[in-house]
Amino acid sequence: MTGRVPGQLCGIGVGPGDPELLTLKGLRLLQAAPVVAYPAPETGASFARGIVAQWLDRGQREIAIRFPMRPGPPPAAIYDEAAAQLAAVLDLGDDVAFLCQGDPLFYGSFAGIYTRLAQRYPVSVVPGVTSLTACAAAAGLPLAQRDTAISVIPATLAEEVLTRRLAESDVAAIIKISRHFAKLCRVLDRLGLLRSAIYIERATLPNQRIAPLSEIDPAEVPYFAMALICRGEISG
Amino acid sequence: MTGRVPGQLCGIGVGPGDPELLTLKGLRLLQAAPVVAYPAPETGASFARGIVAQWLDRGQREIAIRFPMRPGPPPAAIYDEAAAQLAAVLDLGDDVAFLCQGDPLFYGSFAGIYTRLAQRYPVSVVPGVTSLTACAAAAGLPLAQRDTAISVIPATLAEEVLTRRLAESDVAAIIKISRHFAKLCRVLDRLGLLRSAIYIERATLPNQRIAPLSEIDPAEVPYFAMALICRGEISG
Repeated sequence: MTGRVPGQLCGIGVGPGDPELLTLKGLRLLQAAPVVAYPAPETGASFARGIVAQWLDRGQREIAIRFPMRPGPPPAAIYDEAAAQLAAVLDLGDDVAFLCQGDPLFYGSFAGIYTRLAQRYPVSVVPGVTSLTACAAAAGLPLAQRDTAISVIPATLAEEVLTRRLAESDVAAIIKISRHFAKLCRVLDRLGLLRSAIYIERATLPNQRIAPLSEIDPAEVPYFAMALICRGEISG
Repeated sequence: MTGRVPGQLCGIGVGPGDPELLTLKGLRLLQAAPVVAYPAPETGASFARGIVAQWLDRGQREIAIRFPMRPGPPPAAIYDEAAAQLAAVLDLGDDVAFLCQGDPLFYGSFAGIYTRLAQRYPVSVVPGVTSLTACAAAAGLPLAQRDTAISVIPATLAEEVLTRRLAESDVAAIIKISRHFAKLCRVLDRLGLLRSAIYIERATLPNQRIAPLSEIDPAEVPYFAMALICRGEISG
């Protein structure tokens, strides 16, 4: 140990994709940090970095944390290694801004970093706009009012669990549907919900797409897609 | 009808309370609109307006939509009257920015405006940071990863419905708890969840408060409070 005051780690939600959905706080802390880290695929560009690329012109050092784009949870070793890499920067006294698409603690990769470093370093989180409300805004679909409960349900769940959860929901946002599209359609059809499901792909991006779920070609469902199901009527 | 091109209505999520959690897009559209509307109590200041007060210095016309601060849904007449008032502005060709605390379609008052005007005028929505992720960020609590489902549950629900919904949840955010605090504690206690519930009040504001729910005095629970319950461990 050097006796130096350690740097601070800040997880910054950069929003669902539209660069303008970055918050003022996110922008300020992003620009103030000498080191910027972000999740990235094993090869190619980071989506989170791309959202704020126009602000990364100040000579910050960049650290890409490479995650395998395979189904299933990333190996713990990736988080261990990333945490060690960031810890080395923090030990030198430098602040790190960790960019997260959407919100850092809402189905993001930041939680694995957070849990490894929050005991040893000052770690803070700047919440961001999630895909949940971005999709609702894109589709013009009031999500919930008053006594309505909202469920966010990963389509990765087993078919019977997915069925039970959807059967119980007033309003449901189904995430991670890409490889699970056929299963999801079966479940919705069985529950009589297939015709009311709205599909939103790449919300807030220029190639955003909104359509009834029943019209979607399963072969063309990307990672950034969601289905929204609102039962009952929306009133004032 | 005047034959004029009608103005556009934009619902802008201004975030949970910290003025810096406004998005860049929200700021741009707020400043561009000649008319700014917002929900307000029958007497006193609007919370949504207060969040962005520093940006309201450009001589915009302001319209406060006054809602009764009674339990239960506001009368439809309030929405009817507000929609008529905004329609009159839009008919003159002026754009209106409607400010919403948090996100416009996530338990907000904008839905009632939206459903009345979206068929007749161009209406768009700028999503905002919700209290859900703001509370998680404040508490340093990873909400969900991978196959975890998240439930947002109003404490206004009947005791047996609340019990069933909470029993089924992996991760739950309980909103609107103020007058329903005692009922919520009974339900959580029965489910063995009382000790793991985290209470967050006025997230992101200077007087933010975070504590175990079991330590909270029911007499001091304001409207802007939430309880988060995360079962199981968070891992990487």
